[in-house]
Amino acid sequence: MPGSNAAPLPVAFDGGAAGQWRVDAIMPVIGASLPDAAFVAVRDARADDGPPPADGWRLQGFTSNLRYTKRRESEALIARQAGLGRPAASCAALIPITKSPAWWAMAQDERRAVFEAQSRHIAIGLDYLPGVARRLHHSRDLGEAFDFLTWFEFAPEETPAFDAMLARLRATPEWAFVDREVDIRLTRV
Amino acid sequence: MPGSNAAPLPVAFDGGAAGQWRVDAIMPVIGASLPDAAFVAVRDARADDGPPPADGWRLQGFTSNLRYTKRRESEALIARQAGLGRPAASCAALIPITKSPAWWAMAQDERRAVFEAQSRHIAIGLDYLPGVARRLHHSRDLGEAFDFLTWFEFAPEETPAFDAMLARLRATPEWAFVDREVDIRLTRV
Repeated sequence: MPGSNAAPLPVAFDGGAAGQWRVDAIMPVIGASLPDAAFVAVRDARADDGPPPADGWRLQGFTSNLRYTKRRESEALIARQAGLGRPAASCAALIPITKSPAWWAMAQDERRAVFEAQSRHIAIGLDYLPGVARRLHHSRDLGEAFDFLTWFEFAPEETPAFDAMLARLRATPEWAFVDREVDIRLTRV
Repeated sequence: MPGSNAAPLPVAFDGGAAGQWRVDAIMPVIGASLPDAAFVAVRDARADDGPPPADGWRLQGFTSNLRYTKRRESEALIARQAGLGRPAASCAALIPITKSPAWWAMAQDERRAVFEAQSRHIAIGLDYLPGVARRLHHSRDLGEAFDFLTWFEFAPEETPAFDAMLARLRATPEWAFVDREVDIRLTRV
């Protein structure tokens, strides 16, 4: 969360036969999709976790400090964003993304320029607060297949707005650096 | 490494009875020290690693993309830096650091301002290239006790220059945000 010094939280998303969230759709956006799963279990990851669910998959990441957000942007986000777990927010999306080698070869100022000056990633997200709650998890540093896992929660009536937000983001210069993206839609059980 | 899109590398530092590096000294700089150890083994970390060495300790981290470096700084670093493993570089230092909650509560632009505009962290490091080789490992996101583990390698005659570099860094505004620092000196076996 912006401006927070909370300790990083390791999180696992287990796709399989059980979980708090029923899968409505798994849609490949760029590159390969993920195998079908009936449910996704979202939980704290632990070092002694067992194997991934049989006939399923596990995606892992950790929350961390924000890597691009400036102070005034952070303050705007904090003023408007909502937390996870709101009773009315019965819809969720899990969107794993892998960025390209060209993205990771850029220096910090170049990545920031694409992210905000060219793509207005933070500004677009702000337009959908507090309706859409969001938590970003970093996966690349764990050697995972995806670089980022973003989890969104929103009320059913916010779905058109959420889809509009995704369409705007996917049309930005930043998305030219996305090599793989899967869009998983879920409903709370 | 700056400007590189190399995949993150998980690394473990095992302090104990065996390793490629003999410990010459373990010095607390800020806060608590680490237990004594005769050797440090530096190796790739794996998910199926066993327990830490008996009567020893394990520090873990991962290399990653650079978080503050601008393109022209990155180019200056690439032009001058040396890699690890040079035969003449028989001295090493492992410096684990934990930054304060106040550091992590800052936004990206505020951290960058302290790091370089106020403290000239990159510029100071450049003054000691290529004599001192360096690899940064991130640990905070793994829930480790330290936030960063920096590994340095240099020839014995570079030791006074290395010490001078540390003295300059420790005198910067950035170091007001360091809550814990240990300085471990080693010689290749």
